[in-house]
Amino acid sequence: MEMAPISILITGANRGLGLEMVKQMIETAQPVKKLFACCRDPNGPKSEALQTLAKNHPNVSVIRLDASDLGSIKQAAKQVCSVVGAGGLNLLINNAGILSRDNLQTTTPENMQNTFNINALAPLVITQEFTPLLRTAAKASVIPGMSCRKAAVINISAFLASFESVKSTYNFLPALSYRISKASLNMLTVCAAEELRNDGILFAALHPGWVRTDMGGEGGDIDAQESVKGMLGVMASLSEREDGAFLDYQGKTLPW
Amino acid sequence: MEMAPISILITGANRGLGLEMVKQMIETAQPVKKLFACCRDPNGPKSEALQTLAKNHPNVSVIRLDASDLGSIKQAAKQVCSVVGAGGLNLLINNAGILSRDNLQTTTPENMQNTFNINALAPLVITQEFTPLLRTAAKASVIPGMSCRKAAVINISAFLASFESVKSTYNFLPALSYRISKASLNMLTVCAAEELRNDGILFAALHPGWVRTDMGGEGGDIDAQESVKGMLGVMASLSEREDGAFLDYQGKTLPW
Repeated sequence: MEMAPISILITGANRGLGLEMVKQMIETAQPVKKLFACCRDPNGPKSEALQTLAKNHPNVSVIRLDASDLGSIKQAAKQVCSVVGAGGLNLLINNAGILSRDNLQTTTPENMQNTFNINALAPLVITQEFTPLLRTAAKASVIPGMSCRKAAVINISAFLASFESVKSTYNFLPALSYRISKASLNMLTVCAAEELRNDGILFAALHPGWVRTDMGGEGGDIDAQESVKGMLGVMASLSEREDGAFLDYQGKTLPW
Repeated sequence: MEMAPISILITGANRGLGLEMVKQMIETAQPVKKLFACCRDPNGPKSEALQTLAKNHPNVSVIRLDASDLGSIKQAAKQVCSVVGAGGLNLLINNAGILSRDNLQTTTPENMQNTFNINALAPLVITQEFTPLLRTAAKASVIPGMSCRKAAVINISAFLASFESVKSTYNFLPALSYRISKASLNMLTVCAAEELRNDGILFAALHPGWVRTDMGGEGGDIDAQESVKGMLGVMASLSEREDGAFLDYQGKTLPW
């Protein structure tokens, strides 16, 4: 069966896992009709690698979307809408995020709110803004069931958001605001799956592994290439059975 | 063994579960040395019942603490500190909270932030501010192990914050911002337990049941009296075994 090429949007696409996703999606045998690579500052020095990729691949569009500026989300949705039209958006990947190495005694209200806003609230607002386009894609697709090639939202979460992880990881890396924001993102994922199941939109939270990126540091277990290869494989395998699931980059279900 | 009377602080003590806790703590055979009953507006019409109780019970002090005004938390901590002195504070009950009946499609950034601030961030800041007094109490106590009579923080959470609850409850009551905020509170509970275990401060999250209060509505399973009776019994039974646990008002462990 021939499948129609799909439209994908990735946030935080100029660095780390996001940039690696763009690279691997361009190289894949599966055609990408349109890839919206979003970042905070498309014309800044940290977006040069992404801009170079986009120049050589006309199916990649770099779009400004600043997770700390909710107004920019509406703006990005408008831009995407004008491009995808009746095909809608098939896959939204909420990848942008920040990590703060705080704990209960050192964190501040500003830090808690900022991390929550970027890691949990922005994905929520992005999901709200793109729900009409995802719904359109679900309706336009002839693929049975649910899948990332039809209509899906993938939230990049973290094992640190697992309550079961705290005992074994907290002393090493407290990251209290990060854990709370990613647990919030996980709850959003499960609730959104419940709410939008009848619209045919799949939701899942993915843990990329402990990756050697700017965020993960040099001590990580795997590099971005391996993590993204794994996650793209998991995304390709998702169906209605995994709607609302929390999985790692190898497809293993994680405890909440 | 004779146990020293303890000092307790409760937020949201003018209504619902908070007010019922004050009532039952006054009536109990276990002596309460000092009960700090905190509420947003001690002189407002919604605090009259609490003020009447305080008039007849000199061990009850009504203190202003507005969970949406972080400055008022510092102020409350100062007041409490000047009263308890070297005995410290034995038990902090983060009970104040709000419930919004939103879902993914209807919620707003303002609503998400407001609910997060009151239900998760305020308990965090309150815990920060009172940690010195709790540490003092833990050191001053001769009771072995961990307990609510020594040094503890009880966070009033909800079964709706359980990821496992979403499938069976979301259609009936989405309350997305509430679920996210209470899951955040649960994560705070687990992390704080890990971080402050060596200080002898016990942490637990309690689900009061579905209670017929202003928040729970008329359809609840139990009344405030039964819920609080259960929760006080659970609190009295807590030890280091339950440090970081999520329990209901009958002492049953809940899934995250």
